[in-house]
Amino acid sequence: MDLFDLLMQRRSVRNFEARPIPDEIVDRLVQAANNAPSGGNIQPLSIVLVQAAENRARLAELVGEQPWVRNAPLSMIFCLDFHRVKRWAALNDTEFLGERAFSHFLIAYADLMAAAQTVTVLAESLGIGSVYVGTIQSNVGAAREVFELPEHVLPLMVLTLGYPKTVPHRIPKLKPEVIVHREKYRASSDAEIAAAFDAKYGAFDRKDESYLEKAFIEAVEADKQGGDGWSRMTMKEMTRLEISNNAQFLFRFRYPAEEMVKLNARIIDSFRRAGFDFFGEE
Amino acid sequence: MDLFDLLMQRRSVRNFEARPIPDEIVDRLVQAANNAPSGGNIQPLSIVLVQAAENRARLAELVGEQPWVRNAPLSMIFCLDFHRVKRWAALNDTEFLGERAFSHFLIAYADLMAAAQTVTVLAESLGIGSVYVGTIQSNVGAAREVFELPEHVLPLMVLTLGYPKTVPHRIPKLKPEVIVHREKYRASSDAEIAAAFDAKYGAFDRKDESYLEKAFIEAVEADKQGGDGWSRMTMKEMTRLEISNNAQFLFRFRYPAEEMVKLNARIIDSFRRAGFDFFGEE
Repeated sequence: MDLFDLLMQRRSVRNFEARPIPDEIVDRLVQAANNAPSGGNIQPLSIVLVQAAENRARLAELVGEQPWVRNAPLSMIFCLDFHRVKRWAALNDTEFLGERAFSHFLIAYADLMAAAQTVTVLAESLGIGSVYVGTIQSNVGAAREVFELPEHVLPLMVLTLGYPKTVPHRIPKLKPEVIVHREKYRASSDAEIAAAFDAKYGAFDRKDESYLEKAFIEAVEADKQGGDGWSRMTMKEMTRLEISNNAQFLFRFRYPAEEMVKLNARIIDSFRRAGFDFFGEE
Repeated sequence: MDLFDLLMQRRSVRNFEARPIPDEIVDRLVQAANNAPSGGNIQPLSIVLVQAAENRARLAELVGEQPWVRNAPLSMIFCLDFHRVKRWAALNDTEFLGERAFSHFLIAYADLMAAAQTVTVLAESLGIGSVYVGTIQSNVGAAREVFELPEHVLPLMVLTLGYPKTVPHRIPKLKPEVIVHREKYRASSDAEIAAAFDAKYGAFDRKDESYLEKAFIEAVEADKQGGDGWSRMTMKEMTRLEISNNAQFLFRFRYPAEEMVKLNARIIDSFRRAGFDFFGEE
């Protein structure tokens, strides 16, 4: 299939067959990740392959009991790895201080995602579905313990992979013309912004269970895999919180605004415990 | 060509033909970016297409006079865009506080890079080369002014694209077995770390101009495009700084450790001026 068509029909898969991904395919995914672009070619990346059932279960716990992490044959933990770089520098009578430099962090995290997305696209072309699980960022400390990550290594993204059992419907997206700007940023009117998101989500009806298919596919998928009433709980909370539109669903229920800000303390503390500190202004 | 082979032979291109990328191809690149995975499907992304010669020149200035940004027919500025999301939330009687939530920042930046790398891979499959230019992160303030980015929009990555005039040799990479770990992080001995990087870079000889081809291809490419003596300056600095190995070349010359830390103040200040503040612990 044409790569453009493949990318346009790609969606995140959360329901996987049990059969493992063959070793030679996993090797290819890792090779492609390793050949992804890297700022200054520093390559501050490590990938932990999680395939053993026991470790998949532990990883699933760390990311908020997303059942697909437990059930899929493979998860890759993409780690920002300054440990290896620092030791190499020290062995060569020099010093790498990436753990204190926000710039190194930002570029290394970009590298990490370029590698992860390379794996996503290559996997897709081989009939292997995948889903990103970013919630590991809220459990960096525990993840470092379970997977024995040394100082200066941050687990920042999980990519869960396998052969799809089912593929979800296409989820709604903004029209490309909403995100693209020619030469300069194009200011939008309120009406244009409202129209852009209305076109994306369509009418809101919190009593319609099919709403979750477009706004919270995770709940629908989790319930199919023994996730214990995610959809029911969601519908109940939507009523309790008097959610009356799509934006409120996102920022009162899924990502409550104030609670997301309060997470800072936890994330920053876990970064500090891993030896990172670029939050001051020196 | 098989996608794996394509990804393994891909390298960053910095020398482009003048001919433009046809509009219908640019549209496809944007569509693919827009369909890339996004955490919670929030889509906090804007892409500024820079094609006019005058704007390419201004962008080149902002990223440290990298000549390919001036010469290539297209650069895409990938912006983390919370402006649109915040306005949508406000129009719907709710609030999005992503600019104060480190978690939203980290996921949005991951989205941004997933979109950018999707463009990179699709472009490559269409015979279009590209190179990431991350140095815009050190000039967020000026870039926001030139490209008229509103509050809560951060330009975080530039992807410069065009039809390759020349493609550089394969740059050295760590072996995949260095970055991959099975089930748990594998501790390495000093000897293993030294061997991993020795295998990557080979012998060091600062008097050998071909060294720059593997360690600082940017200098070689810049000189080909009127970059005014990057290679000569590099060789001179290597002597002055008494650089005697590959690690010192990176962390004394290219990314001097203390100077990278000092950049924090500049970057954090530019984020604050754009309305972002997730650096405190609340």
